[in-house]
Amino acid sequence: MVKKIGIIGLGNVGEATIKMLTKYSSLIYQRSGFKIQIKAVCDKKKVKNTIAKKYSIPFEVDAFKLINDSEIDIIVELIGGIEPAKTFIIEALKKRKNVVTANKALLAQHGKQIFSLAKKVNKIVGFEASVCGAIPLIKSISDGLVCCEIREMFGILNGTTNYILTKMSKEKIDFSLALRQAQKKGFAEKNPSLDIDGIDTLHKLSILSYLCFGVWPPLDKVYTEGISKVSLLDILYAQELNYCIKLLAIAKKDGNFLDLRVHPTLISMDHPLSEVSSVYNAVFLETHPAGKLLFYGLGAGGEPTSSSIISDIVNIALQKQKIPQQEEDLKLKSINKIKARYYVRFMAYDRPGVLAQISKILALFKISIASVTQKERNKGRLVPIVMLTHEAYEANIRKAINKIDTLSVIKSPSQVLRIENL
Amino acid sequence: MVKKIGIIGLGNVGEATIKMLTKYSSLIYQRSGFKIQIKAVCDKKKVKNTIAKKYSIPFEVDAFKLINDSEIDIIVELIGGIEPAKTFIIEALKKRKNVVTANKALLAQHGKQIFSLAKKVNKIVGFEASVCGAIPLIKSISDGLVCCEIREMFGILNGTTNYILTKMSKEKIDFSLALRQAQKKGFAEKNPSLDIDGIDTLHKLSILSYLCFGVWPPLDKVYTEGISKVSLLDILYAQELNYCIKLLAIAKKDGNFLDLRVHPTLISMDHPLSEVSSVYNAVFLETHPAGKLLFYGLGAGGEPTSSSIISDIVNIALQKQKIPQQEEDLKLKSINKIKARYYVRFMAYDRPGVLAQISKILALFKISIASVTQKERNKGRLVPIVMLTHEAYEANIRKAINKIDTLSVIKSPSQVLRIENL
Repeated sequence: MVKKIGIIGLGNVGEATIKMLTKYSSLIYQRSGFKIQIKAVCDKKKVKNTIAKKYSIPFEVDAFKLINDSEIDIIVELIGGIEPAKTFIIEALKKRKNVVTANKALLAQHGKQIFSLAKKVNKIVGFEASVCGAIPLIKSISDGLVCCEIREMFGILNGTTNYILTKMSKEKIDFSLALRQAQKKGFAEKNPSLDIDGIDTLHKLSILSYLCFGVWPPLDKVYTEGISKVSLLDILYAQELNYCIKLLAIAKKDGNFLDLRVHPTLISMDHPLSEVSSVYNAVFLETHPAGKLLFYGLGAGGEPTSSSIISDIVNIALQKQKIPQQEEDLKLKSINKIKARYYVRFMAYDRPGVLAQISKILALFKISIASVTQKERNKGRLVPIVMLTHEAYEANIRKAINKIDTLSVIKSPSQVLRIENL
Repeated sequence: MVKKIGIIGLGNVGEATIKMLTKYSSLIYQRSGFKIQIKAVCDKKKVKNTIAKKYSIPFEVDAFKLINDSEIDIIVELIGGIEPAKTFIIEALKKRKNVVTANKALLAQHGKQIFSLAKKVNKIVGFEASVCGAIPLIKSISDGLVCCEIREMFGILNGTTNYILTKMSKEKIDFSLALRQAQKKGFAEKNPSLDIDGIDTLHKLSILSYLCFGVWPPLDKVYTEGISKVSLLDILYAQELNYCIKLLAIAKKDGNFLDLRVHPTLISMDHPLSEVSSVYNAVFLETHPAGKLLFYGLGAGGEPTSSSIISDIVNIALQKQKIPQQEEDLKLKSINKIKARYYVRFMAYDRPGVLAQISKILALFKISIASVTQKERNKGRLVPIVMLTHEAYEANIRKAINKIDTLSVIKSPSQVLRIENL
């Protein structure tokens, strides 16, 4: 049997998808019984015509030529960004076409509308490639864990930031140098804000929140903190205490509340997530009855991502409707209400009584100290004092640190990072 | 809609499956639109009637009451072992019923026959629970990696042996003590041979060989070595060299050859597989175009395993036929023909010229030495000498070691373990 598709957007992922559909066409036919025929490809840049020519596929600059083609059953949207991607997907669904997309920013912001339209017209939106590139995570959760309650999710969802944190930790270099190296290698954009400020991770967390908990969160209500304030000093202190620092997307169900956040997090070196290095992604799930699960693989790159896109195409051809996710009525938990353990680094003058002043304020806010490290002695000068706390409320930590930062013995704003006991 | 099933075998997994189908019935209905109704359960032990009563399900001691029930669409076989499980599954297929099984020993030995019958009668055999208990591995490979060529597979597929190796390494205890502790905790059988001799791992490797490469290997042709000869001394030497020792199932495609083996293996401490501890399982895949992937979770236990069984049931209800695996014509590679790096521990008398004698023989067989560790000095007495080799042929290693073991300076048979550079 033949399934006809149209691909919009011939960037890295688009080109790799054409290449892999060609290279593995007989493998796909043998396994699924389907020949996937690329009826036409489209890019607004006319120069991309050369890619189409190489594979002898008709080329268009107008996406509506594909969307209005009655022979095309699946529209593969690979241009990214909000518009015109959103219009293309919505019009394709209205024309009763299935859609495959890798567009996390679009789904995070308009997923609710897109999936409800897809449900209405009884078509599928495949989005395996939108989170964790090559990892078959979406199918694993929706099909493999169909009888599981997911209780907690911890994800390393952004390769750029994980590469930078790995570099800092392994080569003992500071953030700005690691960022420059990532840019040199093509792992970070010239304007790296989307990655290093945690926005890309937030987009993917939003999609996983829908998948695991049935909730499309308002993005501005999810606490999001990037990695630019993580210093080499913190990474080294954390290492000594047997922790590493990762940018995590966190989702925890707590009764009728959903605790969603993105921030640099200390996790134990003994946890498998701590071994996820460089540009790799991973998702760790706490479920019932399946228990703890971890999925690991490449989160980006043309060829790896094309694997997920093609699996969506083939599964649609086989009418393997993904199990649809129901929306749930859970409230978002405010960051102030979370309870966590904390890593706090104070930069204080090395004078008698400093520790007493700090710990008095912590006690005032019911924060109990688990450990204190002050290695360097430098009488009268600035030294770092690192504390790990027992579980405390974020609201109390914030109040306590604000108060401590006004002390005359404290020089610069204290560094606060959250610890997760996975 | 309602799907009627019959469950044969009310051990741990059978009971947990009933419990979870009951507990999560509304979750399953909400996600899939199906009510899974357990029409009857069966166990040859009449005393298991109490379980059926608890859930108000009709109980039978005769499995054919279920197999011949025309209302039952799916037979769930959870008794394990070869017979009568094989007969039950074959008869169920002949009665045009779908089958779900967790029976790895049966599939490893008779999978070819069972899957070809299933194909003939156009029914599904769900086997997600047969490898890596709770991990949705089978669906990930067959559906998620549908356009991928799997090139290499490395699996920690047996919780018992991984528990013992983890114990030895973390608590610095020897094999027999760790085994006794595993038995005490219920992680190892009284007769632990199936686990510690690598047979259970071999069964699962056989199923993965079919899934990843389309080959059902003759079990007696797959090199299989258990963990009982791994000593604490080897684990400690390996640690010093930044390796840990895991019982791995290995599958590598090499042209028209398939290299399948089960043996204790040194892997780098920097690899994510090295963090898979205690009773956890994991599979690491080298694929194209999806790249490296790792799946991690619980490999056994009633409730975790029930998650995979129920996902098979629901996916059959939704007519999500798993993508069938084609059989391939690959030859098995003989263990003598593999090339690997080796860890060799000699127990030699500490006399001048010992190293010269050993290395002369290694050179004779074209084996080049990467590193030598001899920490203890004990003039004239026995000391361990540990060598890591560069890549060499297994056949040459065996000949060289046989020859070295006849030297008068060598006391006991030398220990040889393979290293994999993942």
